[in-house]
Amino acid sequence: MDSELLDTQGVTYPRGFRASAINCGIRKDRLDLALVAADTPATAAGVFTRNLCCAAPVLLSKRHINSEHVRAIVVNSGNANAATGDRGLRAAEVCAGETARRLGCTPNEVLVASTGVIGVPLPFEKIVGGLDALVQDLSVGGGAAAAQAILTTDTFVKQRACDVRLGAGSVRIGGIAKGSGMIMPDMATLLGFITTDAAIDRRRLQQMLARAVATSFNRITVDGDTSTNDMVVLLASGASGMAVSGADEELFRSALERICTELARLIVRDGEGATKFVTVRVEGCATDRDADTIARAVANSPLVKTALCGCNPNWGRIIAAVGRAGVAFDPNRISVCLNGILACSNGMNAGAAKPVLDAVFKEKEIEIRIVLDAGPASATIWTCDLSHGYVDINMDYS
Amino acid sequence: MDSELLDTQGVTYPRGFRASAINCGIRKDRLDLALVAADTPATAAGVFTRNLCCAAPVLLSKRHINSEHVRAIVVNSGNANAATGDRGLRAAEVCAGETARRLGCTPNEVLVASTGVIGVPLPFEKIVGGLDALVQDLSVGGGAAAAQAILTTDTFVKQRACDVRLGAGSVRIGGIAKGSGMIMPDMATLLGFITTDAAIDRRRLQQMLARAVATSFNRITVDGDTSTNDMVVLLASGASGMAVSGADEELFRSALERICTELARLIVRDGEGATKFVTVRVEGCATDRDADTIARAVANSPLVKTALCGCNPNWGRIIAAVGRAGVAFDPNRISVCLNGILACSNGMNAGAAKPVLDAVFKEKEIEIRIVLDAGPASATIWTCDLSHGYVDINMDYS
Repeated sequence: MDSELLDTQGVTYPRGFRASAINCGIRKDRLDLALVAADTPATAAGVFTRNLCCAAPVLLSKRHINSEHVRAIVVNSGNANAATGDRGLRAAEVCAGETARRLGCTPNEVLVASTGVIGVPLPFEKIVGGLDALVQDLSVGGGAAAAQAILTTDTFVKQRACDVRLGAGSVRIGGIAKGSGMIMPDMATLLGFITTDAAIDRRRLQQMLARAVATSFNRITVDGDTSTNDMVVLLASGASGMAVSGADEELFRSALERICTELARLIVRDGEGATKFVTVRVEGCATDRDADTIARAVANSPLVKTALCGCNPNWGRIIAAVGRAGVAFDPNRISVCLNGILACSNGMNAGAAKPVLDAVFKEKEIEIRIVLDAGPASATIWTCDLSHGYVDINMDYS
Repeated sequence: MDSELLDTQGVTYPRGFRASAINCGIRKDRLDLALVAADTPATAAGVFTRNLCCAAPVLLSKRHINSEHVRAIVVNSGNANAATGDRGLRAAEVCAGETARRLGCTPNEVLVASTGVIGVPLPFEKIVGGLDALVQDLSVGGGAAAAQAILTTDTFVKQRACDVRLGAGSVRIGGIAKGSGMIMPDMATLLGFITTDAAIDRRRLQQMLARAVATSFNRITVDGDTSTNDMVVLLASGASGMAVSGADEELFRSALERICTELARLIVRDGEGATKFVTVRVEGCATDRDADTIARAVANSPLVKTALCGCNPNWGRIIAAVGRAGVAFDPNRISVCLNGILACSNGMNAGAAKPVLDAVFKEKEIEIRIVLDAGPASATIWTCDLSHGYVDINMDYS
């Protein structure tokens, strides 16, 4: 039996981690700088945005994640330090170096992350000026403040933690994440920081994280725009004294996936302007990639997303999006179910009563299930609707 | 010298064509059925949606376009006759057959087109009931009514015509089109009907149309959703007595491209909720396909489109969209100009004054010029912004 997910705990639930957050002056009157630190050197794994125009902190953290150990992650909100060239990279290096000096580790044991507006020089002197207080404030109770400080236009804190019972005892996993948008609106930057007190070697930690991210963070879309700053990092302190190996690996991996999935779904629930949580499930495809391509075409269709916002069960837009996805299938064999109601069968209106479909589409959680007849593969993508709120948030300049 | 484009003339400007339009009862209190007829058998060319879930009229017209000659196109708005299965195909066949009977031609000399809501059976009896009046009303002055009848949520009629001076005399080209959205909102269906009184054989007519569409209708995007019903058809009556061959071919092709381009741009200007006309120009790519992929990633980015709507010169979103397009390039060599103002140079802020960029983005016509350093290829895409108007139109159910 899996333990329940705790929603009042995050990165400091696992033993061996402390955190803190302050306002360092990048943003007005709110936390904008967070530090998550391991008491002793931790093994680390990370996945990073594939956007070619990736940000300086991504470039630096990709390098530092290859260190034998990692001691800390320093994260600012309000400035993405992206499209800032060599100067941005040097600013990130200064932040890592100054944090390392205060923690007594080497610069390459510090990861940096940023989220905010692109193309504005990082005011790194504000970050450096806040580091003394940040290090001094580190505490086991500081996880919630760190979860708050990394947010931008998010409307709620995203943290989850759990106990994982292994063969010889239990370990803990905890994580925090931020979702889409900014008060100075920008890319839907996604940041996720996960900790565990299990002892796991780097290679397996990376494998487990990559697999968990593939089925969680990489299964969501708010607006189809991949950020320059996306980063999910997992630190393992080993402070539980429990090494994860053999049969325990699957137990641990499953718990890690649950945390990642829940954090990813929270990001969708808090997507910019979101009024609905939508699951797009595609079945009956020749390959997983086909199913994924179709699910993303539907999940990113502005016409499908506005119909969802308007409680408009317009399944014609769904099959039109499927038809333009670039995947081969027989259009006379497609079926679409909306929250379990068969709306389209064999490519045609299945005759569901309009009041029934209307009622289904008024719900806050919608499952769009698309079934083709081209093979055994399937895929799921989680998304939200496209509302006036999204336009409002992203029209604003400051 | 090219002649001016006429905006008060459309498909009946070329000799040998008449048109008419009526309300047949599919839509309330507005024209919903149009007929464009050639006085004598015309050669025909057509390009059709590549959406796999294409509509019945597309299936039928793709078949009929291969006839030796075409005599007429019958078009209804208010119902797409898509996702309607065999019954929908039979309905389209009845419409073609009944029109043919009244015009004294064979059914396969009649093309059909529909635009409207997907998944609702076509009320073909209403169309058939209107055919007598439609045929009786055919006139050279009927082009404007036909241009009106094919519209959905379009806010203005889209027609253009011109004279083309060839070596031995002149021919005429005229066209009408409809753009995005419906009062019962649906796919952004695009329909274009073009006529000419030049004499051109089928094979060359098809080549010229395909080439003209590639650089006009296929260069626009309102919301990235490809319709089930898109169709552009070109009929050549030969009524000018002028055959197009040799050096005249290039003159004719160029004029045809001008008509198609202008109609395509009108569709963007009247895109659902559009407040701006946007040209995305990408230069310095390894291949045309790379340039096109990048231009579409930028033109379809909801973050770029909402920034345009908000007059927010957020070039960071533009380079982020370029970076996620899946095309290889050096992110330190990208430049972005906004209406001629260099905003980003070598991947970094170029230092343009914010008031200057702000002023530029308040204009109604925006050119986003993106220059990479990966080769000689380029591409242009025309698009519009994403506004509250788009969300409003597409949230509505009826």
